[in-house]
Amino acid sequence: MTQEKSPGELLIDRRDLDFQLYQMLGLEALLQAPRYAGVGRDTVDSIIDTAYRLAQDKFAPSAGKLDANEPHFDGERVHVIPEVAEALRAYIDAGFMGLSFDHEDGGLQLPFTIATAVSMVFCAANQAINGYGFLTIAAAHLLATHGSAEQKQRFMQPMVEGRYFGTMCLSEPHAGSSLADIRTRAVPAADGSYCIKGTKMWISGGDHELSDNIVHLVLAKIPGGPAGVKGISLFIVPKHRIEADGTRGARNDVRLVGLNHKMGQRGLTNCLLNFGEHDDCVGYLVGEPHTGLALMFHMMNEARIGVGSGATSAGYTGYLNALQYARNRPQGRRPDCRDPSTPPVPIIEHADVRRMLLQQKAYVEGCLTLSLECAMLVDRQRVEEDPRARREIDLLLEMLTPIAKTFPSEYCLEANKLAIQVLGGAGYTRDFPVERLYRDNRLNPIHEGTTGIQGLDLLGRKVRMHDGEGLRLLLSRIEAAIAEAATVPRLREEAEALTRALDAFRRTTGELTAALAAGRVLPALANATLYLDAMGLLVLGWIWLRQALVAAALPESAFTRGKLRACRYFFRYDVPRIVPLCAMLSSFDDTCLNAVDDEF
Amino acid sequence: MTQEKSPGELLIDRRDLDFQLYQMLGLEALLQAPRYAGVGRDTVDSIIDTAYRLAQDKFAPSAGKLDANEPHFDGERVHVIPEVAEALRAYIDAGFMGLSFDHEDGGLQLPFTIATAVSMVFCAANQAINGYGFLTIAAAHLLATHGSAEQKQRFMQPMVEGRYFGTMCLSEPHAGSSLADIRTRAVPAADGSYCIKGTKMWISGGDHELSDNIVHLVLAKIPGGPAGVKGISLFIVPKHRIEADGTRGARNDVRLVGLNHKMGQRGLTNCLLNFGEHDDCVGYLVGEPHTGLALMFHMMNEARIGVGSGATSAGYTGYLNALQYARNRPQGRRPDCRDPSTPPVPIIEHADVRRMLLQQKAYVEGCLTLSLECAMLVDRQRVEEDPRARREIDLLLEMLTPIAKTFPSEYCLEANKLAIQVLGGAGYTRDFPVERLYRDNRLNPIHEGTTGIQGLDLLGRKVRMHDGEGLRLLLSRIEAAIAEAATVPRLREEAEALTRALDAFRRTTGELTAALAAGRVLPALANATLYLDAMGLLVLGWIWLRQALVAAALPESAFTRGKLRACRYFFRYDVPRIVPLCAMLSSFDDTCLNAVDDEF
Repeated sequence: MTQEKSPGELLIDRRDLDFQLYQMLGLEALLQAPRYAGVGRDTVDSIIDTAYRLAQDKFAPSAGKLDANEPHFDGERVHVIPEVAEALRAYIDAGFMGLSFDHEDGGLQLPFTIATAVSMVFCAANQAINGYGFLTIAAAHLLATHGSAEQKQRFMQPMVEGRYFGTMCLSEPHAGSSLADIRTRAVPAADGSYCIKGTKMWISGGDHELSDNIVHLVLAKIPGGPAGVKGISLFIVPKHRIEADGTRGARNDVRLVGLNHKMGQRGLTNCLLNFGEHDDCVGYLVGEPHTGLALMFHMMNEARIGVGSGATSAGYTGYLNALQYARNRPQGRRPDCRDPSTPPVPIIEHADVRRMLLQQKAYVEGCLTLSLECAMLVDRQRVEEDPRARREIDLLLEMLTPIAKTFPSEYCLEANKLAIQVLGGAGYTRDFPVERLYRDNRLNPIHEGTTGIQGLDLLGRKVRMHDGEGLRLLLSRIEAAIAEAATVPRLREEAEALTRALDAFRRTTGELTAALAAGRVLPALANATLYLDAMGLLVLGWIWLRQALVAAALPESAFTRGKLRACRYFFRYDVPRIVPLCAMLSSFDDTCLNAVDDEF
Repeated sequence: MTQEKSPGELLIDRRDLDFQLYQMLGLEALLQAPRYAGVGRDTVDSIIDTAYRLAQDKFAPSAGKLDANEPHFDGERVHVIPEVAEALRAYIDAGFMGLSFDHEDGGLQLPFTIATAVSMVFCAANQAINGYGFLTIAAAHLLATHGSAEQKQRFMQPMVEGRYFGTMCLSEPHAGSSLADIRTRAVPAADGSYCIKGTKMWISGGDHELSDNIVHLVLAKIPGGPAGVKGISLFIVPKHRIEADGTRGARNDVRLVGLNHKMGQRGLTNCLLNFGEHDDCVGYLVGEPHTGLALMFHMMNEARIGVGSGATSAGYTGYLNALQYARNRPQGRRPDCRDPSTPPVPIIEHADVRRMLLQQKAYVEGCLTLSLECAMLVDRQRVEEDPRARREIDLLLEMLTPIAKTFPSEYCLEANKLAIQVLGGAGYTRDFPVERLYRDNRLNPIHEGTTGIQGLDLLGRKVRMHDGEGLRLLLSRIEAAIAEAATVPRLREEAEALTRALDAFRRTTGELTAALAAGRVLPALANATLYLDAMGLLVLGWIWLRQALVAAALPESAFTRGKLRACRYFFRYDVPRIVPLCAMLSSFDDTCLNAVDDEF
């Protein structure tokens, strides 16, 4: 039996994180860019060390308590257990809020990849607390890119310093997935500001007393603008007004109507907010009028990668918890032993438990690459100087975003389900974190664009954009990895399997895009979610092939053997699903599309 | 938009239940047996009417409240919200506890199929409350078959009357799946009773104040008996002793140590119980010494079918809730409409939502057949007089039990996951029942033998028993349905698909059983869970083919079109998974079996 570890030691395997950052993604090459002058591996490692320590000491211990004692609203204020403010204080004091911001914006100017890695460690420890920081960072990133100098100074700066927190306000009670239908209005005032009026729903971190102020980034329509999404503008709407000298002023006309009571992620407040009940809600336009959706997608894309990385974190820590349990719980004997007088074996000895653990390992370690790779593309967008290479990075990131949002959300949720199963009855109790992790993770296929929406985005838009250039680029990268693997005897089987999958996927994509081009929109998109799943499996197959290539080139160890085994698992159990999925898609099956209401 | 229904009206579609009982299963033919003299369709219908009414009025309204206010233990007594006792009182007064017991035992002597159907209705309304009744009925059934006349009179009779409740006490803290290792001891006393000493874990309904007494059925070992499962005996251990005159006496030495705090099914107490802390716990042997496991399997098999039917209920009501939401929630436009000035459509118009609904429909309506069919086999065991026909019924029931336990547990859980997804953010809140239903249902793949245990039972035991006679019989029934469907033009595609699946499954089974016979136990059983999944899909394919055959023979209606569409869904989306699963099994893949601890 191995020694029992505390929850804080079961976050994300540090060996694996280092393997991903340095061996898989080549972080050190990125650090050569002038932007990161003076930052070396030692700096990065010590920041990650600090993140693990804080996550263990300040985030993990309160995760269960926060879940059992969710924030409550007394009609005036929101009450949150004190451990949350304490953890966030330590997080801010250690500089994590400003990690990826420019020096001139008061940040440490470190790669987004590192910010993502540490966010995943915090998220594994306590997804709810990390949410406050995550939203603030994403909102401040948006202002760093699109805010005016004054907006940056008044609103972004205090967020980078951790004094103000941020939110994103898109949905309304009647408009969730369909932003074209939002009704919140922004009427120009004499002083150049806007008067905001409307109701926003599902606002994470929408109210609390954890920061001096809350900066809401709000989508609203300026009267007289175009209909639909083309008439949406983006506004900064602070909870408290800011005085001319930059100090916090009186309350703005933003009112918390109530908190939503969620299945999981209970520690992160989720709010119904009324803006302008008394016609006195001031907002400040960001960028040009009617460009709000495009601007918000800056934050949304970051949030989508963040949803995926958060899902990965929950899956990863669930896996490590299940692994520890399986190593320490004796139960039963192997099926070839019928002697009840022999001692029971740890359940990791049972083939089915190993299968459930290997499945979790394949999903969570594959998704870790996927999340960090997207973050690395964001960094490379920033530092790449060659326009052609830069364009390729843009295209790849666009293609991968729906996968990076959805695959971890769906498959690491499955990993959490399996973690419960490994623990059996114990996993079904609140004495172990795995049931909470499952509940936390169940949100991820829903928010920031449901899985169904991501499927439509991928097949209806991304695959066809720039005449298919993004898809061709991605598939050529997959081909390159296959070609490399084909030269490694122990990976030949995988190279062949991925070739078959890639061929089927390319053929099916051609048929679907031809149908779209011919105006057969409904049949072509009817199973877009399955298309997304097929492409997710293909991308994860590519990722596992690359992990195996890197591992095969390292000196052999239990770690590299584990990588090769998880790769083989994914290729034997999951990759074979791609060809049948493509066959189904190529059949343009209309069973669901043509289902009539009264048949249900 | 359709009118919003209350939760109580969204339990199990009554049209479908009637279709299953009368068209699919031929309940009226069963009622011809002398055992059911005087019982006609009108009796059955009025009992089911009563069940729906009670479920709506007394069970459904408190489901959310009970989840939010779980039972608590003050160190002396367990407190449960008063709605539970009220609902159980109404249930008992209406005669539901005694529904399937013989007249001579004080019951109504109705088919177990009807008892199962009404249990499913109650379970859909409030799985936790139904649990108390379900366990009591199953324990009393065991005593009806295996108890002595005195035991029946003293213990079973009050359970049939609803005055005493029952439990099953198998697991111990160190022994869950592995009953060979239980340590609870039963030492013979001078008066013929036994002195019980030990600790039992995960005991549902193990303590409460809802009944005058609790009758625990306890597995324990009589010192000196054989090692392992062959040394297990079964005992009646009451919470309160019974006086000679049959009245309730002093407390027996059974103590509640504590309640488990579960992810779901929170309203059903789940207990850690100490027996004989003061060496004063009296128990009464049921049947012969050392035959306890076989006797307990009487209750266990009923419980396994009950777990499956409970999972089906949770899936079914989740589906109906999602369907109602999808019909009433307007959001977005179809992808071929780009005009934002057109009104949004109900989300049931979106292909992906239809897909999620159709998937739920295919799982829950298929599992409804499966659960009721097993119940019908239990009834037919009772009334069949021809020994050969009776043997076939026994064999079929043995084969189907692991499927009936597992397929609904896994697939109706998936249905609940999809129901949350249809509701989106709303589904993630505790304002709608779908998140609770998911939490309730997550237990079902775990208790009464995990999915992994069921896979080993199926492939390691059931498939090989009587030289494969049970499996051959089941497959011949599937072939018969295929032959019938092959004559119906609109079902030819399905008949062909199931033939391919059946062929692959038969071939793979031959390879696996040959390996088992040759002593290659570990590789043959390594993926037994996948074998169980493949067979589950095959059985559900068979069930859907039969539903389609029956529907195709009825006058066409929205209902019959819905059945044919759900059948097609299952054949297009799920049946194609059987052949690849069989290929994987035939490859004797050892990726998981040979995974070494340090590779994780």
